[in-house]
Amino acid sequence: MALIVHKYGGTSMGSTERIRNVAKRVAKWARAGHQIVVVPSAMSGETNRLLGLAKELAPAKPDTAYNRELDMLASTGEQASSALLAIALQAEGQPSVSYAGWQVAIKTNDAYTKARIESIDDQRVRADLAAGKVVIITGFQGVDENGNITTLGRGGSDTSAVAVAAAMKADECLIYTDVDGVYTTDPRVVSEARRLAKVSFEEMLEMASLGSKVLQIRSVEFAGKYKVPMRVLSSFTPWDIDIHEEAKSGTLITFEEDEQMEQAIVSGIAFNRDEAKISVLGVPDKPGIAYQILGAVADANIEVDVIIQNVSKDGKTDFSFTVHRNDYARTTDLLKDKVLPALGATEVVGDTKICKVSIVGIGMRSHVGVASKMFRSLSEEGINIQMISTSEIKTSVVIDEKYMELAVRALHKAFDLDQA
Amino acid sequence: MALIVHKYGGTSMGSTERIRNVAKRVAKWARAGHQIVVVPSAMSGETNRLLGLAKELAPAKPDTAYNRELDMLASTGEQASSALLAIALQAEGQPSVSYAGWQVAIKTNDAYTKARIESIDDQRVRADLAAGKVVIITGFQGVDENGNITTLGRGGSDTSAVAVAAAMKADECLIYTDVDGVYTTDPRVVSEARRLAKVSFEEMLEMASLGSKVLQIRSVEFAGKYKVPMRVLSSFTPWDIDIHEEAKSGTLITFEEDEQMEQAIVSGIAFNRDEAKISVLGVPDKPGIAYQILGAVADANIEVDVIIQNVSKDGKTDFSFTVHRNDYARTTDLLKDKVLPALGATEVVGDTKICKVSIVGIGMRSHVGVASKMFRSLSEEGINIQMISTSEIKTSVVIDEKYMELAVRALHKAFDLDQA
Repeated sequence: MALIVHKYGGTSMGSTERIRNVAKRVAKWARAGHQIVVVPSAMSGETNRLLGLAKELAPAKPDTAYNRELDMLASTGEQASSALLAIALQAEGQPSVSYAGWQVAIKTNDAYTKARIESIDDQRVRADLAAGKVVIITGFQGVDENGNITTLGRGGSDTSAVAVAAAMKADECLIYTDVDGVYTTDPRVVSEARRLAKVSFEEMLEMASLGSKVLQIRSVEFAGKYKVPMRVLSSFTPWDIDIHEEAKSGTLITFEEDEQMEQAIVSGIAFNRDEAKISVLGVPDKPGIAYQILGAVADANIEVDVIIQNVSKDGKTDFSFTVHRNDYARTTDLLKDKVLPALGATEVVGDTKICKVSIVGIGMRSHVGVASKMFRSLSEEGINIQMISTSEIKTSVVIDEKYMELAVRALHKAFDLDQA
Repeated sequence: MALIVHKYGGTSMGSTERIRNVAKRVAKWARAGHQIVVVPSAMSGETNRLLGLAKELAPAKPDTAYNRELDMLASTGEQASSALLAIALQAEGQPSVSYAGWQVAIKTNDAYTKARIESIDDQRVRADLAAGKVVIITGFQGVDENGNITTLGRGGSDTSAVAVAAAMKADECLIYTDVDGVYTTDPRVVSEARRLAKVSFEEMLEMASLGSKVLQIRSVEFAGKYKVPMRVLSSFTPWDIDIHEEAKSGTLITFEEDEQMEQAIVSGIAFNRDEAKISVLGVPDKPGIAYQILGAVADANIEVDVIIQNVSKDGKTDFSFTVHRNDYARTTDLLKDKVLPALGATEVVGDTKICKVSIVGIGMRSHVGVASKMFRSLSEEGINIQMISTSEIKTSVVIDEKYMELAVRALHKAFDLDQA
C-alpha cells in the first residue's frame, strides 16, 4: 500500500463526463489498496470566466484589496470541481471528502494572486485516509495567517499537488495531463522525439524554465526541494487501463540520479521563441555598469533571461540581454530615455526575430565537449550563434528565429536522442 | 450614523451591470455616513447550474457525505458574487472587503443543505467597518464546529442577513428584492391591493407561512426572536434615488406594535392553492387516533398543514387534514395500505381542488367577531367553507379552488383593505 497524490488539470475536469472518468480512475487506485489524495484544477474555462467578470467590474487602479477579492473569486472554481469529484467518487461507491485550501490548512504568505505555500497541516487528511476515504484538496489556493483566501497563480494546482505530496511524504505525485509525458523535444518539431521514461528534477527544472509547458516551474522546484517523486502521465488513457501499466507510464521526474541517467549526456532539446534580444553598445567598461542597466530594467518589472557581457576593447564593452518579446518596446524606450544618457553608451540595438535553443542534461556535468559538439552541429547547418549562455546542466544559444526547427532537429540527431 | 445591513437577491446580482448598480446604491449609503454590511445571494441561475452538475454525478443513494459536498459546491456561488460586489465597490472608490461564512465566522449546526445558524463572531466585521470599509458577507452559508462548510437551504440569504443584523445589533436590515414591499394581498388577484407601510413580524410570519413568497419564513422568525427591524424594498428603483425617500420606501416589518397597527384589525389576505384535503371517515373515537394517523404520515416525511377533528357521533369521528398537492397520492396510498386496516376506519376521501384563504392581523387579538365577519362575507358570496382553522392572529378557511379569487376580493373589501 502506497500513499499517492493524483493531480488532474482543467481539461481532465472539463465536463461531468470527464469528472466521472477521473472518479473511475481514482476509485481503481483506491480499490487496489492505495491511499489516494486528489488535487483537481477548476473545470476548464471556469477560472477565465470568473476573472472575466471581475475585469468587467475592475477598479481603475487595482491594488492589494482588489487582488484579495480576485483570490476570493478565482478560488471558487477549484472548490466547485473538488466537490463535484467527491460526489462522482461517492457515485462509484468510493467514500470521499473534499477540502478547500483553508480547511486542510494550506498556509501561504499573503501575496494575493501569486502566494507561496508555507505549511500544510496533514492531520485531518491522514484521519480521513485511515478511514478509507479518498481525500480531495482544492488546487491553486491556500489561506494566509489572517484567514484570507490566497491563490498560487496560474498553474498553481501542480504546486499544490506537490506541496501536499511533500507534506504527507507521499510515495509519488502523479500529474495527470493532456500529454503522455516529457519528450526529448517537441514532437511537433521533431517527429523522432521520444518520450523519456525518467528525467532528473534538475533537468525538468531547466526544461520547464526553457519553455516546455508540461509542468509549472514552481512545482518542479518544490518537488526538488522536498524530494517528491513526480510522474507526468496522460489522463486520456482509458480509465480501466491495467494499474501496473499505468503506474509505469508517462515520465518519472526523480531526485535520484541513477546510473542510466549518467549515461545519457543530453536528455532533451528545449526551445523558446518568446524572447527578444537587446544590446547596449559602446558602454564604458567600469564597475557598476551591469547594475546601472539591469537595475533600471528590473525597476520597471521587466524580467531578463540571458545576460552576456563581452570582453572589453579600448575601455568600451557591449552588453546584451534577452527579455520577453512583449517587453521589447518598453525596454528599448526605457534604455534610450533613461539609461543611455547617464551611461555615456553609444547605442541601443535589438532584434525580436530570435529564438533560444538549449540542450539539457545532467550528464553534461561530468562530460567535457558537450557544448562544443552543440556548436559544431549548428555550424555544420550554417547557423550563426548570436549569444551563448551556459549553466551546469544546460547550454543555450540564441539564433535567428528562422533556423529554430532546423537547429532543434540537428541537435536532436547529433545527441542521438532519437535512439532508444 | 447607523449600522445597516443590506441584502440583495439573485436577480439583483444577476449580471455585472446589475452588480455595478448594487455597488452604486451601497456606495451612496456609505457616503451618507452609514456603516454598511451587505449580504448578497449568488448570481441568479448560478446555484441551479451548480446543483445541476451535481445531479448529473449524484450517487444512487445520497447520504450525509453527499449533502456535505453539495454545500461545498453550492456555497461557491455566493462567494463569487460577494467578491465581485467588493470589486465593483472598489471601482466606485468605496473601500470594501468580502468574507465567506467561515471567515466571519457564521457558526451553524452540521445539518448540511439546511443548517441553522448558532452564532456569529462580529469582531472582524466591526474592525473593518470602523476602518471605513463596506463589509460583504456571503449569504446562505456558514461553517460547522468541525470546519465544514454548510448552507442554510433555499432562500437562506434572507436568514443570513437577519442573523448578521441581529449579531451586530444593526439599526435596520434592508431586504432588497424584485417587489416593492408587502401587500394587503396579491395585486394580481385584487387590483385594489395596497402596499403596507408597516407590518408586525407576527403578521409577516403568518403571511410568509401562508404562501406570500416575499421573504423566507425562517428569516422572519429570526427577526422576531432578535427584534431586528426589517424592511422589504425594491432593488429596481434607480440607484441614485434620494436616500431619505429610499429609507422610508417598501414595507417595514417591526416588532414594535404601535397604535396604528392596533387600529387595523386585518392587515392582509393570504392564499395558497398548493394544498390538498384528505379525510379519514368513520374513525373509532378513542385516545391515540390522531397519532396513529398523523404519526404514519410524519414518518413518511410528509408535512401536514391544517388539521381538523370533528365532534364524534355514535363513537365514530371524521379526521381531516391538508398536505401539499405533490404529496396527495402518496398520502392516500399510505393511509389505505397501512393505516386504515389497523384503525378500523371506513374510508379515505380527498380533494385536490381546494385552496386555503386566510385573514391575518394582530388586531384580531383584541377584537371579537373578526372570524364571523369573514364567514358572513364568504356566505354572502355563496362560498361553502370546507374546513376552518384559527390561531391568535389569523383565521384560515379551506374552500373550493374555483372560488379563490372571489373569496380574496370579497374579504379584501369586507375588511376595508382597499382604504388607505
